[in-house]
Amino acid sequence: MRIGIDVMGGDHAPEAVVQGVMLAYGELAKGSRMVLFGDKEKTLAIMAQAGFDAAQVDIVHTTQTIEMGDHPAKTFQQKPDSSIAVGFRTLAKKEIDGFASAGSTGAMLVGAMYTVKPVEGVVRPCIPTFIPQTNGKLALLVDAGLNADCKPEMLYQFAMLGSIYAKNMLGIDAPRVALLCNGEEDEKGNMLTLAAHGLMKNSRDFSFVGNIEGNKIYFGTIADVIVCDGFVGNIVLKQAEAMYMIAHAQGVKNEFFDRFNYELYGGTPVIGVNSTVVIGHGHSSTQAIKVMILQTESLIKAQLAEKFKLALNNNANA
Amino acid sequence: MRIGIDVMGGDHAPEAVVQGVMLAYGELAKGSRMVLFGDKEKTLAIMAQAGFDAAQVDIVHTTQTIEMGDHPAKTFQQKPDSSIAVGFRTLAKKEIDGFASAGSTGAMLVGAMYTVKPVEGVVRPCIPTFIPQTNGKLALLVDAGLNADCKPEMLYQFAMLGSIYAKNMLGIDAPRVALLCNGEEDEKGNMLTLAAHGLMKNSRDFSFVGNIEGNKIYFGTIADVIVCDGFVGNIVLKQAEAMYMIAHAQGVKNEFFDRFNYELYGGTPVIGVNSTVVIGHGHSSTQAIKVMILQTESLIKAQLAEKFKLALNNNANA
Repeated sequence: MRIGIDVMGGDHAPEAVVQGVMLAYGELAKGSRMVLFGDKEKTLAIMAQAGFDAAQVDIVHTTQTIEMGDHPAKTFQQKPDSSIAVGFRTLAKKEIDGFASAGSTGAMLVGAMYTVKPVEGVVRPCIPTFIPQTNGKLALLVDAGLNADCKPEMLYQFAMLGSIYAKNMLGIDAPRVALLCNGEEDEKGNMLTLAAHGLMKNSRDFSFVGNIEGNKIYFGTIADVIVCDGFVGNIVLKQAEAMYMIAHAQGVKNEFFDRFNYELYGGTPVIGVNSTVVIGHGHSSTQAIKVMILQTESLIKAQLAEKFKLALNNNANA
Repeated sequence: MRIGIDVMGGDHAPEAVVQGVMLAYGELAKGSRMVLFGDKEKTLAIMAQAGFDAAQVDIVHTTQTIEMGDHPAKTFQQKPDSSIAVGFRTLAKKEIDGFASAGSTGAMLVGAMYTVKPVEGVVRPCIPTFIPQTNGKLALLVDAGLNADCKPEMLYQFAMLGSIYAKNMLGIDAPRVALLCNGEEDEKGNMLTLAAHGLMKNSRDFSFVGNIEGNKIYFGTIADVIVCDGFVGNIVLKQAEAMYMIAHAQGVKNEFFDRFNYELYGGTPVIGVNSTVVIGHGHSSTQAIKVMILQTESLIKAQLAEKFKLALNNNANA
């Protein structure tokens, strides 16, 4: 397995990324090899300083870097030799099996959508995120922010993709899927969720348990996969982030709130596309980069794209 | 001033409500008199047991109670002598100046919409809620749940109503109004917020400061009034409730998290209607009922409906 990593992405690149690479090296499986995209000279210098043998990884030298101000859609043409553009071209040629970056989210999404492309039958790819539960487990929130405007069919597919993701990445056999809503009764909702609820009810593609309210999403009692549009998902996720920041800033010592630390979870995969694409947090530290790389390895191993294809072909409601 | 109170509403009615009434009695202004709607015999018995002089309040005897299973829209016809139906008829006749209940939210909304009715020009009334800020102040979230599906014009009006509410109830001279969004940049949003943003930008009806993300709503640094549709508002509010419950359950001692306790804030007013209507939490304790009554007094005093009318007549963007 070949894991592609953008060395130039993130606020603390390339130092934090290369250090994360060196940290991940010892924890990857024997058959996993990292392929780094970025400034070769700088990368080698950081490795030399740490006494790391650069022959343990491949380095693809690139000369351009996508900056935060760059337009995501245009940047692949404007900066064809950027680490992200070269990474995606290599991924599309299947010379690497997955690609991870803590750089421009916009450019990563453009790469996922237009270079790797959605799995046939997927209306819109989405991004899942883990949310800690008070019972010690994790639940999945999907879509956590990719699609601000959704149609009911999209929420239905997020439920399918999320269910497969939870089964493979969280080891839950038949994940309970719930629809995030302003009331638990079937007749509660906005026009979008009411229509989505109608599609999901009696679904044979996943195990639908009904609506879930915002005050129940952290307790693990109702659902393993929580489905919402990306606008709502973004706000839920950011609000949880705020609570973590507040607990941290106010010196609250609590194991549950500590579990909202994004460094524990690596990056956010884009699911529903034909390969493994992982977007790391812009502020990623060395530790976060390491987790992102290990997560990319697990995702590649899980062969999710193949499983999505299979599920869409068998789509009971199609 | 005459403050109407539904004695039969809430999980712990009538005991908790009558006890809340007796507790509020000493804190109300001299000119304020409470008018109770409900079972007179039971009310008098609770007062007698506490040694409270029942002549300090008016009691309107009613014979029916709206239950949680009753259909809100039909219940006014089916139970014309329920405490909520009689309360609203009395309010419409202006024999009381405001009406508060911890009973059926649905019936209270129906009463507000069809008996008291929206202020002329208001597309849809809404419910604001306070959210604690780490700087010790409060911000307003509006709509906190009344309107699951909104149009851009509705969000614009929520901003107007919320701005007036914050000015009068929080004493903020020119409240900073922000639109809850999945990104702070002007071009971020879903179709609804993008259109609303366009209307709000350059508004002369309130002081618009742009978009606010979900991780910024607790810090007081950006906005005093946070506008969203009622679906999103409900989820934000419930999620904050979950965080309070978790902090509480896990024995976290922290002043900020403690401020999410709904008992501190009384009920939720329905704003944009022609009178003062306050909906208390179903679980309301004696303490919560007391705060709800004092809040109703403040709201009546603030004459918000008159101020809304004036603002709508002067609506700069109309």
